[in-house]
Amino acid sequence: MRIGIIGTGTVGQTLADKLVSLGHEVTLGSRTKDNERALAWAEQAGPNGHSGTFADAAAFGDVVLNATGGTVSVAALRAAGAERLAGKLLIDVANPLVFSSEGELTLDPVNTDSVGERIQREFPEARVVKALNTMNAAVMVDPGKLSGEHNLFIAGNDEAAEAETIALLGEFGWPAEWIIDLGDITGARATEMMMPFWLRLYRHFGTTEFNYAFKRNA
Amino acid sequence: MRIGIIGTGTVGQTLADKLVSLGHEVTLGSRTKDNERALAWAEQAGPNGHSGTFADAAAFGDVVLNATGGTVSVAALRAAGAERLAGKLLIDVANPLVFSSEGELTLDPVNTDSVGERIQREFPEARVVKALNTMNAAVMVDPGKLSGEHNLFIAGNDEAAEAETIALLGEFGWPAEWIIDLGDITGARATEMMMPFWLRLYRHFGTTEFNYAFKRNA
Repeated sequence: MRIGIIGTGTVGQTLADKLVSLGHEVTLGSRTKDNERALAWAEQAGPNGHSGTFADAAAFGDVVLNATGGTVSVAALRAAGAERLAGKLLIDVANPLVFSSEGELTLDPVNTDSVGERIQREFPEARVVKALNTMNAAVMVDPGKLSGEHNLFIAGNDEAAEAETIALLGEFGWPAEWIIDLGDITGARATEMMMPFWLRLYRHFGTTEFNYAFKRNA
Repeated sequence: MRIGIIGTGTVGQTLADKLVSLGHEVTLGSRTKDNERALAWAEQAGPNGHSGTFADAAAFGDVVLNATGGTVSVAALRAAGAERLAGKLLIDVANPLVFSSEGELTLDPVNTDSVGERIQREFPEARVVKALNTMNAAVMVDPGKLSGEHNLFIAGNDEAAEAETIALLGEFGWPAEWIIDLGDITGARATEMMMPFWLRLYRHFGTTEFNYAFKRNA
């Protein structure tokens, strides 16, 4: 499959590496064509790895992944171009993290809105699915890193798009029964709002390699 | 121990029942002395169960539990009286839930503040510990309802108060190693912000009897 990734940070590169290793063809998109991180990534990724602008990546992908920071995601996707996203599965991995100079985390948007919802409103013809934003990038692409069943959450308005997302996540190693559908795209609010909790757990556990699981009736 | 409970809803009554069953003496406090729920609870609770006003409950307790709705907690605790809370462990179980007429959940406060922080600011001489607000009342008082290890989160500025909370939770059946300390009272923000996620999980699982657990490195 051809996949466009919007954003060249750790999340974008980790997803790009995994997708290339699975045999997909990837364009890693950045704001400018000469982004050094994107060029270096494509250089080492082999023939199935390319770099380009946000618009190049969106045009290239049958599926597009948003791996930008949540506070700039809408701007990045505007640069990618609504017409290049129309009709496509757009998997949104972003969290709207705002760190103060003292390292305190707040979210923007929060509570009454979310990055996932903003993207779906701004690009009504894209088929947006929120996914993967509740864990570290290394866990996203290798759920077997952790022992036993743990969970991943999706939210979106388009059930076919959710099914396509589940299939792609299956290639990453996520059994479909580990994936919990939180409903329509407003569910993005619920998962984005877990980030302050995730950050405190990271400080508590001393590692980013953990994930949520649930216990039910005995 | 003598325990005052502020709030007569399901959470307050469930905690009150458990504490009486453990041999503690409880006053269930409501806004008015003649609250029917509180009177009925005390009637069936036996000699160790009493009812009264918020002020009666706070004066009675060596430990005070806030089980009011988070949007009215500060008002309820003002009625209880700062002088009756001073120096005491005040365990805050509240979540600031606001439901729209369409059933949509938002939080107030959120993101830059929390119920736990508001209470600690308003009553600086109380020793506030946020706890238990991430699960259903039935799970709070009977962690063995769920199979295997699952987790409870606390946050507070006073380490001795946290240790007293862990000891009381131990009486409920919570092993100390299942209790995760998220740091100072600003950690209340993190757990209160999990409520939209909890509500979606409840809809997904079709039961309120579930709780969080974590998976770590394989």
